[in-house]
Amino acid sequence: MKTNSSTPAVIIANGRFPRHPLPLSYIDNATFIVCCDGAANEFIALGGTPDAIVGDGDSISEENRKRFANILHIVHDQEINDLTKSVNFCIEQGITDIVIVGGTGKREDHTLGNISLLAEYIRKVNVIMATNWGLFTPIQADRVFQSFKGEAVSLFSFDPEPITTQGLQYPLDNRVLTNWWQGSLNTSLGETFTVKTKGRVIVFQAYR
Amino acid sequence: MKTNSSTPAVIIANGRFPRHPLPLSYIDNATFIVCCDGAANEFIALGGTPDAIVGDGDSISEENRKRFANILHIVHDQEINDLTKSVNFCIEQGITDIVIVGGTGKREDHTLGNISLLAEYIRKVNVIMATNWGLFTPIQADRVFQSFKGEAVSLFSFDPEPITTQGLQYPLDNRVLTNWWQGSLNTSLGETFTVKTKGRVIVFQAYR
Repeated sequence: MKTNSSTPAVIIANGRFPRHPLPLSYIDNATFIVCCDGAANEFIALGGTPDAIVGDGDSISEENRKRFANILHIVHDQEINDLTKSVNFCIEQGITDIVIVGGTGKREDHTLGNISLLAEYIRKVNVIMATNWGLFTPIQADRVFQSFKGEAVSLFSFDPEPITTQGLQYPLDNRVLTNWWQGSLNTSLGETFTVKTKGRVIVFQAYR
Repeated sequence: MKTNSSTPAVIIANGRFPRHPLPLSYIDNATFIVCCDGAANEFIALGGTPDAIVGDGDSISEENRKRFANILHIVHDQEINDLTKSVNFCIEQGITDIVIVGGTGKREDHTLGNISLLAEYIRKVNVIMATNWGLFTPIQADRVFQSFKGEAVSLFSFDPEPITTQGLQYPLDNRVLTNWWQGSLNTSLGETFTVKTKGRVIVFQAYR
């Protein structure tokens, strides 16, 4: 396997296949690509070759099941979804940096589940999610983000811990966010902004 | 205005315009249609006629701004988004039942914000959101849901209150959900299921 700890692995999840140039460029430049079971057929049909296919095996076509039998990793566990199985597989391979694409854009409960799982994955691995609209970055400590003036920024909090921001139009000052919308629809004032927290927060930055 | 408390008003929000027959049927049968500012142009271009257009007025075309000046309600308030402005407008008109369509499918931070706002609106008005994938219903007390065997059901909790379910494949027994994915990807066992809670919960039911 072509694992390389300096280049992030890409996981293609079961949502809408990427169309935006940024998630597509992650796929194009990846040295290791894991397809969630349900995403493999479309990626292969588009000419892609996954390095691993991970999931419960109920969504891959018979043709691809045979053709890619040597890289098909079936995990039977109804407690976790195919994205989590794929992240766990990466961790088992020693991969420390992961970019998830295709995690949103279909059933909204899948979208909500997949985004919120970033707050679990960040405990074990460096991970971001690139959608067709922007980047989700989970954090669990203070972080400075590269940005640009006018960038749309939203914060989603997963712990009842106070959050303080610098460099955003509507600053948070030691505030606990108790609903998803409360930290959303902010704007960056310049080339960086800072989020200070002891809890888990997912930061969304919309593309320019 | 053609308000009618027995028929829900429909709010067309700024997300992806509906394609699924259910949200489209809500629009077709509505006796009162409110377009969020950003959704008005597309609805009008498709031949629709809104009863009201509500928002901060920065997204409607000059042509529509003039043509629909008599039903255009500009609300300048940077603390609330156009969907909340539209819900507040409905409440001011005495409307007690609202169906929101077009609330998801574009920028995910808007999707998350709009879904989570249902947990605020339910304090004042009966409301559901119909997307291209399923129905979101906010509750703040015990509720029996009409369902069918095999229906995909997800629960999202907005308060640290225990939840108990009946009629779901993976039952919750007096459990507090602390992350969005924890109550997701469940399945209905029959024609109804029950959610018991003292907190605010949003229930997602995927279409058949």
